[in-house]
Amino acid sequence: MALHGTFGRIQAAPENFISDALIQDIRSQGLDDGRRRFLRQSFAAASAALMSGGALAADPPGGDGDPAILSLPKHSTSLGHPVAHLPYGQPSKHEANLQRRESPGLTRRRESSIAFTPLQGLFGIITPSGLHFERHHAGWHDIDPASHRLLINGLVTTPKVFSVADLMRLPSVSRLHFIECGANTAMDWGSPAVPSVQYTHGMLSCCEFTGVPLSLLLEDCGIDKKKAKFILAEGADGASLTRTIPIERALDDVIVAWAMNGEMLRPENGYPLRLVVPGVQGVCWVKWLRRIEVGDAAYATREEATQYIDLMPDGLSRQYTLIQECKSVITTPSGGQRLLDKGFFNITGLAWSGRGAIARVDVSVDGGKHWRTARLESPVLPKCLTRFNIDWVWDGKPAILQSRAIDDTGYVQPKMAELRAVRGARSVYHNNAIQSWRVEAAGEVVNVQIS
Amino acid sequence: MALHGTFGRIQAAPENFISDALIQDIRSQGLDDGRRRFLRQSFAAASAALMSGGALAADPPGGDGDPAILSLPKHSTSLGHPVAHLPYGQPSKHEANLQRRESPGLTRRRESSIAFTPLQGLFGIITPSGLHFERHHAGWHDIDPASHRLLINGLVTTPKVFSVADLMRLPSVSRLHFIECGANTAMDWGSPAVPSVQYTHGMLSCCEFTGVPLSLLLEDCGIDKKKAKFILAEGADGASLTRTIPIERALDDVIVAWAMNGEMLRPENGYPLRLVVPGVQGVCWVKWLRRIEVGDAAYATREEATQYIDLMPDGLSRQYTLIQECKSVITTPSGGQRLLDKGFFNITGLAWSGRGAIARVDVSVDGGKHWRTARLESPVLPKCLTRFNIDWVWDGKPAILQSRAIDDTGYVQPKMAELRAVRGARSVYHNNAIQSWRVEAAGEVVNVQIS
Repeated sequence: MALHGTFGRIQAAPENFISDALIQDIRSQGLDDGRRRFLRQSFAAASAALMSGGALAADPPGGDGDPAILSLPKHSTSLGHPVAHLPYGQPSKHEANLQRRESPGLTRRRESSIAFTPLQGLFGIITPSGLHFERHHAGWHDIDPASHRLLINGLVTTPKVFSVADLMRLPSVSRLHFIECGANTAMDWGSPAVPSVQYTHGMLSCCEFTGVPLSLLLEDCGIDKKKAKFILAEGADGASLTRTIPIERALDDVIVAWAMNGEMLRPENGYPLRLVVPGVQGVCWVKWLRRIEVGDAAYATREEATQYIDLMPDGLSRQYTLIQECKSVITTPSGGQRLLDKGFFNITGLAWSGRGAIARVDVSVDGGKHWRTARLESPVLPKCLTRFNIDWVWDGKPAILQSRAIDDTGYVQPKMAELRAVRGARSVYHNNAIQSWRVEAAGEVVNVQIS
Repeated sequence: MALHGTFGRIQAAPENFISDALIQDIRSQGLDDGRRRFLRQSFAAASAALMSGGALAADPPGGDGDPAILSLPKHSTSLGHPVAHLPYGQPSKHEANLQRRESPGLTRRRESSIAFTPLQGLFGIITPSGLHFERHHAGWHDIDPASHRLLINGLVTTPKVFSVADLMRLPSVSRLHFIECGANTAMDWGSPAVPSVQYTHGMLSCCEFTGVPLSLLLEDCGIDKKKAKFILAEGADGASLTRTIPIERALDDVIVAWAMNGEMLRPENGYPLRLVVPGVQGVCWVKWLRRIEVGDAAYATREEATQYIDLMPDGLSRQYTLIQECKSVITTPSGGQRLLDKGFFNITGLAWSGRGAIARVDVSVDGGKHWRTARLESPVLPKCLTRFNIDWVWDGKPAILQSRAIDDTGYVQPKMAELRAVRGARSVYHNNAIQSWRVEAAGEVVNVQIS
């Protein structure tokens, strides 16, 4: 076919291929001697030039002679790898240290395990699926989707079993949402216990989820709207993890999801089905979802009767917590990082609210005495991470960095003292207090608590 | 520390751990005999229940006796893997066929290679970084970011060299944008040449990018705003790929990006720096970016003088094409897939425009005689993919599926005949015509051309 053939021919015919150094490339463009001279002068000038805010960390690669001719790296003078050398792409070998990590201080058993997302090395709002945080109650399996089923039973006219293929034929929605474990930042209630944002806030991720609205499935099964008050969601792992969710929420924006960040869920995130419960603590986002029961009373399962509850000052327990309240954290500069120079830095971080969208984020560099309003990156979506950025010129003196988020309900992220005035000293979960990072004069950044 | 200890204790103490079958889990919840009986009845009823729109592909796993007791799969009755068994997560082994693939008909040399994104198996708008399309002019390298530099020279007061670390200290932005190769859908100008949407439209991806606005760097170097008319962007690969970009666009929304989908760029996508030129054909998004020159005339480099141009009916060439015009495609059902049943299906696809946001997508199932308006998933962002969905009940007869996108400038995606009336028969690049998929009575879906 002529057009096909033409298309084939235009793919970089060998005689056109520029395989040599930059200066040859410039010559091949037909530049005159004047411009070529100018380019060389630019290289020379540039190697001595300073950028605003700091010296170059090292000189650009260069030899004794004309740096543009003599010092090009091998990757600019040779053929690289062809496409698709791997069935599925991987990060650069130079990024190998950016990993999910377990805390030395927390349980590291197959019966109960946690891996934290490295927020200090991430950008924007999307969490790469390979770095999504993990919290397992009986470990993860790579379940065969062909044999997996979802049962809907309880207060419905017609209990039904759905295969994954059945569900994927139904009307689907795609939405970006954060997921945060109710125990995120739990180690920092008392005093700073962990060194970095990976451990203080790393049970937090944000992805695009695709699936069928749970409301559609419940209506398809003929939910008894007069009697139904709660649902029970149950996972297919060895823990049979179960959580109660009020029916108003189950019929609102909850999704039975099969996809995350454009592809099928990862095994450790619930492949082939997980519940997505926007704004609600992670334990309710049941992974390996196999059953939804509609009931008329809360179920008081193990994970809600004895776990994920907060002991309040009056001796009562706060149970069935759903919403993750408005919260934020600066991810760079953050604990464990080190500023090598004085001068300009971009302070960046994340803000989120289980009640809606972020309206504003304020940043302080003096421990809360003065606040400036940060820029929010678009899109700003409800129940989704929002990335903020703000300029900062560091004068080399000790500083305390804080961020304070405000959501579109008007709720303001509290200081630790404000939170503890309400919640007392015995809460474990649901800590959304303002985080403080102290920048030492030497540039080290450490986790500190400012009441 | 007391709180730390408490936190450790609540992580699934062994005496609470439910390691056995579902029915034991139910008993441990203290359910009475009545509910237990009901649950068993639900299982029995459910195994016979049909969902709306199709029979179950297979019965749920079950034995001869009580299915809830006897037939639970191993993953529900055993411990799974602990977290973080791998430094970086991978898709399920059951998804191993979802890969970037090379076309047998196109060049497969290290000098020039292409890998297509498997759009038929993706969801939402985010392209997983491991499946982002690839188009290399001299192969890819995994460049050490510590030695990589970006030079800005030409019509500026102070040419400068930036290290990657220098750039990452500057004010950054994060934005979601599509990238489409100018040659996407090039093989289908004449007649349908390839079988699936992976090959018709798979030089298309969409990610969140983070970096510093190019305008900020140009201003920092003191761009001569009176004389500057164009920039030249140059890559550090062996091809020294170079493209001209008009100065108005360079000063608009162009980003010098280091991150994609939350993490550092992948090597095959330009690690550690690539240019992001929203709405513009992919060849301008120069990978492994090492130089930006500011000039007063277009550069007529190899990749724009002899490549990526369209021969028009009047014998002139359309050159320096920038904008990828408004376009859409149905990704499911699509070529190579097969509908196993009559009944309900969710038709889903992607729409995008280099000029702005998608305003509307219409879908036809009869080859363009009748159109219905699809639902757009949020967020709908400018120069970004938009996911659309629409209900369809297939009657089992042959059908022709088409989608037609309209952007917020009012531009309507053309039929092939309309496009060829303007562009003639000799264009190779920049085909944004309506795509047609024919569903055969047997359920097979094939690529066809409807004028």
